[in-house]
Formats: sequence, structure tokens, C-alpha cells
Amino acid sequence: MAESRRTGAPGGAKRDTYTPETLLAVAVEVFLERGYDGTSMEHLSRAAGISKSSIYHHVRGKEELLHRAVSRALDGLFGVLDEPAARTGRAVDRLEAVARGTTEVLMAELPYVTLLLRVRGNTETERWAMERRRDFDARVAALLKEAVADGDLRADVDVRLATRLLFGMINSIAEWYRPRAGNAHDDAEVAGAVVTLAFAGLRT
Amino acid sequence: MAESRRTGAPGGAKRDTYTPETLLAVAVEVFLERGYDGTSMEHLSRAAGISKSSIYHHVRGKEELLHRAVSRALDGLFGVLDEPAARTGRAVDRLEAVARGTTEVLMAELPYVTLLLRVRGNTETERWAMERRRDFDARVAALLKEAVADGDLRADVDVRLATRLLFGMINSIAEWYRPRAGNAHDDAEVAGAVVTLAFAGLRT
Repeated sequence: MAESRRTGAPGGAKRDTYTPETLLAVAVEVFLERGYDGTSMEHLSRAAGISKSSIYHHVRGKEELLHRAVSRALDGLFGVLDEPAARTGRAVDRLEAVARGTTEVLMAELPYVTLLLRVRGNTETERWAMERRRDFDARVAALLKEAVADGDLRADVDVRLATRLLFGMINSIAEWYRPRAGNAHDDAEVAGAVVTLAFAGLRT
Repeated sequence: MAESRRTGAPGGAKRDTYTPETLLAVAVEVFLERGYDGTSMEHLSRAAGISKSSIYHHVRGKEELLHRAVSRALDGLFGVLDEPAARTGRAVDRLEAVARGTTEVLMAELPYVTLLLRVRGNTETERWAMERRRDFDARVAALLKEAVADGDLRADVDVRLATRLLFGMINSIAEWYRPRAGNAHDDAEVAGAVVTLAFAGLRT
């Protein structure tokens, strides 16, 4: 999905084929390159190859584009928590499903999740996104705590610290993973490695 | 060590007490805030509270400051590989010592390592630092490979992928760890959690 959007956006699309969807993909690329604060409507207009007034036809401004972009990432991440594997069964297995699913969403929605991870809180949208990220982390931490109480996860690592390290590992994938571009690892291998390393450890 | 430097630098120091050391600490703060490319000698002069010519008394320019800063991080990291625990014994134990030591260096030299992690390669110094980082990663990957050959590490996770995930987890600590500032976890706890999670896994 992310692929078709990306290929459709910067080079190929003509003015009249622009949709809020393709405009969003271009905007996210520019935000990632220049930073959200450093991006003007002029930059977006040049990158999209359409006039500023055409952009205003689709959105009220750049903050709306940011909101849509991080919403897409957040919808993907919260969607993982709603999947059956994350809702039923032992807490430790649900936690594994969440770790795997989060990794898969990060890879499938790479630019959107990368943007979400860089959000720092200068605008209302950014503060809202950070709040939603904290909600997500809190739900995962609660799952981890439950799994420790079940006796399925070790009690000698602090729950908050374990949550941070687990997501630190997952989020770091955004720094080197690139879809298609001769990637040495496929998505299932990466998600599997995360789960193996975090839950079973590297030692035999 | 990093502490005393940091407290000595921006507010307290007087002109005549400036040393290459305190100037470096201020420069790293500015590089982290503005990005290296976005930092001018004027910015450094203002942040340090000394004239540009005073700065030129200490260094040839901002690239020399960058070089000193990333060298300090790299010296710390390569120092870990030279410690006895990383040089003798089974590969898996040496690898554990490297993971623990790297985490400790990251926390002790936080601004310097954070700067190193952000280096992207626009100048000769940046390209050199990236090359040194690759050397470091290659030496760790070799250790991991050796531990797999010894039968001490699982063979079902690709060595390069495991190295990336392990360092992704460690490097992510730079995003939330702050020395002193009411930190919930002490350094030994964080380094211990990294080793436990990566080598033994979270499951009981």
C-alpha cells in the first residue's frame, strides 16, 4: 500500500490526478527531509508540482497534512492492539503479537511512522500525537506488567525500562530499513528477529 | 566526568577560564540543538559567551570541534573493545561485555555519543566518523558470528540483523536517558537490562 502511494506521488502524477492521498505522501517526504518546522507551503508546492492554492483546495494548511500523516501511523499502531492475537490469550503471547505487529506496521508505513517518531511537540497536533504515543506505550507497559504477574516474563527487569528498550529496538529499524531497495531482510524476517531477540534472547 | 564538564560550561565559566575542553562541551550542545550544518561560528561564539577570535585561538573552526567531539565518543566505544572482558574468554561473554560497556559509554558520554549517532556524512570528518562506526559494528558482528559458531548464540537470527537490533536498542537509550535529572533508572540497571533482554530474553 505504502509503495503504490509513494511511486504515484512525486515524479509521475499530473496536476489533475492529485488527491489528498498523493499530496500527503509528498508532504511527508518533505517533512522528513526539512523537518516539519522548516517546511513552508512554498516547499510543499514545489515538491508536489502544484500551486499553493491547489494545495489549499485539499487542506487548510501544513498542520492538517501533519495531522493526517501521524494519524495514519497511529491508526496502524493502535490497530495492532485491536487485532485478535493482541486481545485474547495469555498476556505474554499478546505482547509478542504487539511487538511483531508494531514492527510490521513500522515497515509497511515507514515514512508515516518515522514522522511520528520525530514529532517533538511544538504544535497542537504534535502534542496530541505525543499524547497518543504515550497512551500506546502505557497500554503495552500494562500488558508487560500482566505478563510478569502471570510469571511468564522475568520480574528482574523494570517494566518501564523493558518497554522502552523493546520499542527502542523496534523504532530503530526506521533508521536503516528501506522497502524494496535491495533490502537484505524481508519484513517477516525482521519482525521475527525482533520477537526472538526480545523474548527468547540471543543465547542458546 | 561528563557531568563536571557540562556544569562547568555554559553558564558558570568566565572568559579566562575557557579551555578547549569546556569550549567543546558548549559546541556539542549547540551542534545537538541546531544540527552541525546549521551551526555557525557566530552561534558558537554567542553560546560560549566569548568572541569568535577567542574560539579561533583554541581551534581552526567548527569542523575541528566536531572532530574532537566524535573522537571522544569513538575513543570511548573502541575503548570497550580493548577492555580485558572484551578480549578474553568465550565470544558470547566478550559480546555481552561489549553490549554492557557500549551502553555505559553511551550514558557516561551522552552528548558526544548522541552527536556521533546523528553524523550523516557531509564533511570529511563526518565521513571519517561513519567509517569508524562501521568498523566498530563490523568488529561486533564478527564477535557475534564467532559466538554463533561456538554454539553459544542461536543460529536462526541473521548476524547482521541481530547486530543492528542490538545496537538499535542500545542507541535508542540516548533518546530518553538523562543523567541526574530525576532519572528513574541508574546506569548499572539500564546496562544490566540491555544485556538481560538481548541475551536471555524477557520470557522466563
